[in-house]
Amino acid sequence: MTDRVITGETAIIRDYFAPLAAGYPGAFGLTDDCAAITPPPGFDLIVKTDPIREGVHFFADDPPATIGWKALAVNVSDLASKGAAPHAYTMALSLPAAPTAHWLQEFARGLFDAQKAYGCHLIGGDTDKAPGPLSIAITAFGLVPTGKMVRRGTARPGDLIYVSGTLGDAALGLRLRRNDSDAAAWPLGASSRDDLVDRYRRPQARVQLSAALLAHASASMDISDGLIKDLGRMTSASGVGATVNLAKLPLSSAARAVVAHDERMRALIWGGGDDYEILCTVPCAAAQAFEIEASCAGVGVSLIGEINADRALAFPGFEAAVAAAPDGWDHF
Amino acid sequence: MTDRVITGETAIIRDYFAPLAAGYPGAFGLTDDCAAITPPPGFDLIVKTDPIREGVHFFADDPPATIGWKALAVNVSDLASKGAAPHAYTMALSLPAAPTAHWLQEFARGLFDAQKAYGCHLIGGDTDKAPGPLSIAITAFGLVPTGKMVRRGTARPGDLIYVSGTLGDAALGLRLRRNDSDAAAWPLGASSRDDLVDRYRRPQARVQLSAALLAHASASMDISDGLIKDLGRMTSASGVGATVNLAKLPLSSAARAVVAHDERMRALIWGGGDDYEILCTVPCAAAQAFEIEASCAGVGVSLIGEINADRALAFPGFEAAVAAAPDGWDHF
Repeated sequence: MTDRVITGETAIIRDYFAPLAAGYPGAFGLTDDCAAITPPPGFDLIVKTDPIREGVHFFADDPPATIGWKALAVNVSDLASKGAAPHAYTMALSLPAAPTAHWLQEFARGLFDAQKAYGCHLIGGDTDKAPGPLSIAITAFGLVPTGKMVRRGTARPGDLIYVSGTLGDAALGLRLRRNDSDAAAWPLGASSRDDLVDRYRRPQARVQLSAALLAHASASMDISDGLIKDLGRMTSASGVGATVNLAKLPLSSAARAVVAHDERMRALIWGGGDDYEILCTVPCAAAQAFEIEASCAGVGVSLIGEINADRALAFPGFEAAVAAAPDGWDHF
Repeated sequence: MTDRVITGETAIIRDYFAPLAAGYPGAFGLTDDCAAITPPPGFDLIVKTDPIREGVHFFADDPPATIGWKALAVNVSDLASKGAAPHAYTMALSLPAAPTAHWLQEFARGLFDAQKAYGCHLIGGDTDKAPGPLSIAITAFGLVPTGKMVRRGTARPGDLIYVSGTLGDAALGLRLRRNDSDAAAWPLGASSRDDLVDRYRRPQARVQLSAALLAHASASMDISDGLIKDLGRMTSASGVGATVNLAKLPLSSAARAVVAHDERMRALIWGGGDDYEILCTVPCAAAQAFEIEASCAGVGVSLIGEINADRALAFPGFEAAVAAAPDGWDHF
């Protein structure tokens, strides 16, 4: 392993990023000024731009492979929530200083692992040195049958509310990563601690769920800023309200142990950021089919509440706890 | 005019950016997590990501409308050079501090003017506050008949080399903008000085030329880092060489006056950045048709040289001057 410093955009692209474009004809080996996507007939191209920045979404000294992974996964997570299959991405990389060969190698490996897991290629971008935090702005492209993108603002009264996976792990992982004093006392072994930090560093985009969402969801989005904040966005865009049973939120065994040890941590389950799980609504008549298809796709989904016409969010039994908890994650 | 400070991503998007999405159905008024592009059958989607940053591509105190214009125009310039018609764009905006209403209004007006001039819409993006320079990362999408994107690496020996417009104006404008001491002595009136600064601040993407490029060019790219550097990229990607008559480079009357006053400034004509003119090659047999179509499209093109098989660049009569001049613009 070397820590030779690599200068020059051309060398960085040729040696570290061009391999990520191999196999995609319209990327032209990253040697042209633009990329070309030839969309298959009958499909829309779904587009998402969600940059991640040092100090906000990751730490400067995080393993570079996890930074690369996260930069792509957070965008793929949005595509998946819309029912889209990942197809390609561009990347604008802003580096505060010339990187080392090791850093670039590992960063590119993280991107490669993610693009392999999600089935897409790097097709273009820009690498720049600029003062300020390291920033990675990926624009991701997915494919969905024409007109079928699952919207955020189309939830209807009576629809059931589901979330995928487990919530709060990444927010707890962030506390561990920051070495918060209370986290030291959590009753967790080393591997549980590592798992939680990994949930923060390497979110899992739920691409396996996109077919079930396309088939059955009335509305869908990913949870990046905490369940309650993102649910509020969904109901507000849909002009509806929701009742959610917060006692039914899906918790990992590690999260359950932390909450049992310190009840205050429960607010992170519904208010912490970086979950990158799916929040969706499904009409009652489609609920059983949705649950079965999600299960066959290998993604756990939990029924947590119901959409109503009230234009407000209700959390029976938890109103005081929610009111007392700090707000969700706001990037601005 | 107010200089009220605007905080909150939601308010910024709703009040200033959502109007830029009006009229594009797949932008969903910037209220959804992703945008949807429905490409017309028979077309490829051409993609370009080229961020601009304070201190590199513009000054923090430039009029915000010119910053918005430039952010979009530099990307559209790439699309035009590939023969593509601008279609849509996403924007990741990173602000060092909460902006004022006036700044946002003017910035959005600059974007609006550019998208109206070029025929495209904002369809999505992200607004974030982050330390470091103001940065605007636009990803632009254009349409070109399937498989017809004009490449950079396809110039052939015998092809003629053309550039659009005039070269060096933006580089001279940058010197004026910086108040370089020698620039004060240039024999230019106030309006010529303003014109040169405007070439730096508000590049004109040559979208009118894209049909002629599609029909006749064997290779094409835009000039952003100086003619010689970008020509070197084109010939190197094409595995060819070129002979260029630097005496034939097209100069504006202002640039001509500056060079007559100070011969050293000539190096900026071929080596300065930010031209955003088209550099293309055209087979001899198509040259007349190309010139006529460019002229009908209202874009001046100048024949400046010829591609050969030498794998080197030759500048008869100017070899010493080129060797003595500083290198082209490298962003890294």
